Amino acid sequence: MSFMTELAALLDPAGILTGAQIDGYLLDNRRRYHGAAQAVVRPRSTAEVAAVMKLAHAHGVPVVPQGGNTGNCGAATPDGSGTAIVLSLERMNRVLAVDADNNTITVDAGTVVADVQAAARAAGRLFAADWGAVGSARIGGALGTNAGGVNVLHYGNMRELTLGLEVVLADGTVWDGLRGLRKDNTGYDLKQLFIGSEGTLGVITAAVLKLSPQLSAQATALVALETPDAAVTLLRGLQDQVGERVTSFELISRRCWELLAEHCPELPQPFAAPPAWTVLVELADGGAPAVLVERLAEALFELGHEDVLLAQSVTEAQDFWRLREHIPESQRRRGTSIKHDIAVPVSHIPAFMVEAETVLKAAFPDLDLVAFGHVGDGNLHYNVFLGDLGKGVYEHEPAVNAIVYDIVARHQGTISAEHGVGQLKRDQLPLYRGEVELNLMRTIKAALDPLGIMNPGKVL
Amino acid sequence: MSFMTELAALLDPAGILTGAQIDGYLLDNRRRYHGAAQAVVRPRSTAEVAAVMKLAHAHGVPVVPQGGNTGNCGAATPDGSGTAIVLSLERMNRVLAVDADNNTITVDAGTVVADVQAAARAAGRLFAADWGAVGSARIGGALGTNAGGVNVLHYGNMRELTLGLEVVLADGTVWDGLRGLRKDNTGYDLKQLFIGSEGTLGVITAAVLKLSPQLSAQATALVALETPDAAVTLLRGLQDQVGERVTSFELISRRCWELLAEHCPELPQPFAAPPAWTVLVELADGGAPAVLVERLAEALFELGHEDVLLAQSVTEAQDFWRLREHIPESQRRRGTSIKHDIAVPVSHIPAFMVEAETVLKAAFPDLDLVAFGHVGDGNLHYNVFLGDLGKGVYEHEPAVNAIVYDIVARHQGTISAEHGVGQLKRDQLPLYRGEVELNLMRTIKAALDPLGIMNPGKVL
Repeated sequence: MSFMTELAALLDPAGILTGAQIDGYLLDNRRRYHGAAQAVVRPRSTAEVAAVMKLAHAHGVPVVPQGGNTGNCGAATPDGSGTAIVLSLERMNRVLAVDADNNTITVDAGTVVADVQAAARAAGRLFAADWGAVGSARIGGALGTNAGGVNVLHYGNMRELTLGLEVVLADGTVWDGLRGLRKDNTGYDLKQLFIGSEGTLGVITAAVLKLSPQLSAQATALVALETPDAAVTLLRGLQDQVGERVTSFELISRRCWELLAEHCPELPQPFAAPPAWTVLVELADGGAPAVLVERLAEALFELGHEDVLLAQSVTEAQDFWRLREHIPESQRRRGTSIKHDIAVPVSHIPAFMVEAETVLKAAFPDLDLVAFGHVGDGNLHYNVFLGDLGKGVYEHEPAVNAIVYDIVARHQGTISAEHGVGQLKRDQLPLYRGEVELNLMRTIKAALDPLGIMNPGKVL
Repeated sequence: MSFMTELAALLDPAGILTGAQIDGYLLDNRRRYHGAAQAVVRPRSTAEVAAVMKLAHAHGVPVVPQGGNTGNCGAATPDGSGTAIVLSLERMNRVLAVDADNNTITVDAGTVVADVQAAARAAGRLFAADWGAVGSARIGGALGTNAGGVNVLHYGNMRELTLGLEVVLADGTVWDGLRGLRKDNTGYDLKQLFIGSEGTLGVITAAVLKLSPQLSAQATALVALETPDAAVTLLRGLQDQVGERVTSFELISRRCWELLAEHCPELPQPFAAPPAWTVLVELADGGAPAVLVERLAEALFELGHEDVLLAQSVTEAQDFWRLREHIPESQRRRGTSIKHDIAVPVSHIPAFMVEAETVLKAAFPDLDLVAFGHVGDGNLHYNVFLGDLGKGVYEHEPAVNAIVYDIVARHQGTISAEHGVGQLKRDQLPLYRGEVELNLMRTIKAALDPLGIMNPGKVL
């Protein structure tokens, strides 16, 4: 029997989409990759995923796992050959259990991240992962790319928020590692292999995620600074004063404020004249909000900062965050840019910024540089416009990337901080990770997926 | 040439110990395993480790990596055949770099954990890993067993405190993954494989570890409780009130106080009459200590706790901790016990305690049960004396283990929370981790160490 005939026997009619129905599944979030597939397969249970994988394994059919399709590197988009199936987890979206005393939540991999946040909130707990796309991103994709976001500084990436996984392996075997333990040293920590492997080693079908106490107080401020160096100094000073209560520390360049003013005029600007650099800082704590706001004000004053906008209400804090979160949108409206999702040690950020801008400006005099990001954990979104080239800018992408990534490498950084490798950075990876590391990855890949059917052409 | 002759050519004379010199390296911390070896090899550099591994690989000689030899499961002790070499990292003990702005420290794997703590402190930072043996345990061993300790609740295990590793693989290849990044999604997170693998996949030679802000305030209290259930309720209540500031939450049974009184009479007892259960709770924060102490007192009062001893000074807090840390010593003086290092979801602790005690007492009427541990993260040290059998108690170990571990398994727990598997629990592992999980581990082991020379007979 043909693969498609056998597949049809495994699932309900709505479980298999073909033809015009599947267009949306074949185009990536940034519209850079448009693939093809035999079908989009939408199982409703782990058993169905296992059956599909077993069949695909028997037929040697490539499988591209997909969650909310919000990734930025094309990891969830099949190649153009049309031989693969897209395995969408969107119908596996139940919150399976909330254990408030254990601070854990167990969910299907297709659960939307915002739904996990909401379920935690309803139980008086916090699921701390948060970023712009949480309304459509799904847990499986977030785990596959080890997603980061605005709370990593205090709560960690998806990896640090995960205690257990259930995974369907390349041959259809189900590994049940759904444990909710903070300490478990019984052999190799297998879940770590699948987190961040972008669907190339197996299909994550469920997860036990960490919850945290829900904090009653937030204090939020915009602090004007002259240099990125001042941001690093401020972060250290704040941590000395208020410990690990700093939950967000986002750097914003003047150019971001200008883009927001031009392309998102509906959002009121907080500064009369945008400062060269701004930090959006947030503290979180139990207790009364007013106490924390006062503490932040005192700490900033003691550290010598006077050009400070302290949010006076939750609404004002939300206004600050809305501005931060609209920076990507304002860039989209500005046009097409060459984007970099990089990280260096926090202490290297100032030097990286100076060196990269100098070299880029020498090579591209009409450079329009937009830098912002999660400086608290060393992660910058470093985006380059070249005049008004539109999509023509991509012609210069290899040259721009080479400049940026080589400087990143000199500062012991990474060419992908939180977006992963996917298709976009696959060919750069060997340049910056070395033969020993790549060989180790290839060894793992060959051991877990000897037929090479799991998301081929991604990462490696 | 013979293996030993070639080995001698790779190292300085002090780099190779044989004969009577090596006795101490062949006996494990708990004196349960006494192995044999061709030699103890003590390289001074990663290059020397690589040369030794290359030679061992060529000759098929088993290699047993060893740090401070403080492990509790015999993972660092060779078998009795005498074919292996012990690879001691003790001469690789330098702090290589401290980056206070990046909150990282880079160290040789042979660095004593307390020396890492001291170097962090000197830079105004905290290295948060802490447990009884830090004065002799070394970083490589702590990583190999993914060590835990008293600060896991807030700071995580060694795994969560590690950003990068350098590892010498089984064939002598050096993998340089010494990156100090909080976000790095460039392929599989290889360091996770080596952390917790107890030297069975490679030799960790250096690490980049996370530092934290040094907190100026601690608040410490002993809270008397009637049941373990009350401890779980208290933990949740405290987290609701003071957020994640709870750094330690240790449960102590009445029997522990009695053993301390009898065997450690030099330590003054805090309670006139020891309560059925006690929690040692500690908060940490920036700011003034008095503010935090007051906050802890208020929170405990609001949660309805009146039988509370609040440490009034740093000295008194240290006295509380000294008592907690002497519980293992008081047990040693009491005699030989069957020890369990288990974890269950925090919410399952009360039920586990009741069930295990009931079943054990029915089977062993002269049971003397000593339970204590890191309840905040679900980890109990659950130790069983049977009358005064001395080492004869080990005759009953399989029966006692079967009772305890089966109840742990019913509560989705683990038979090893923070001590690892080593030799001690190797034969139990397949009973509680299932064939799929064991096969995955064997696949990884075969892929990374095809000759099986890395610490054979441990874990798998």
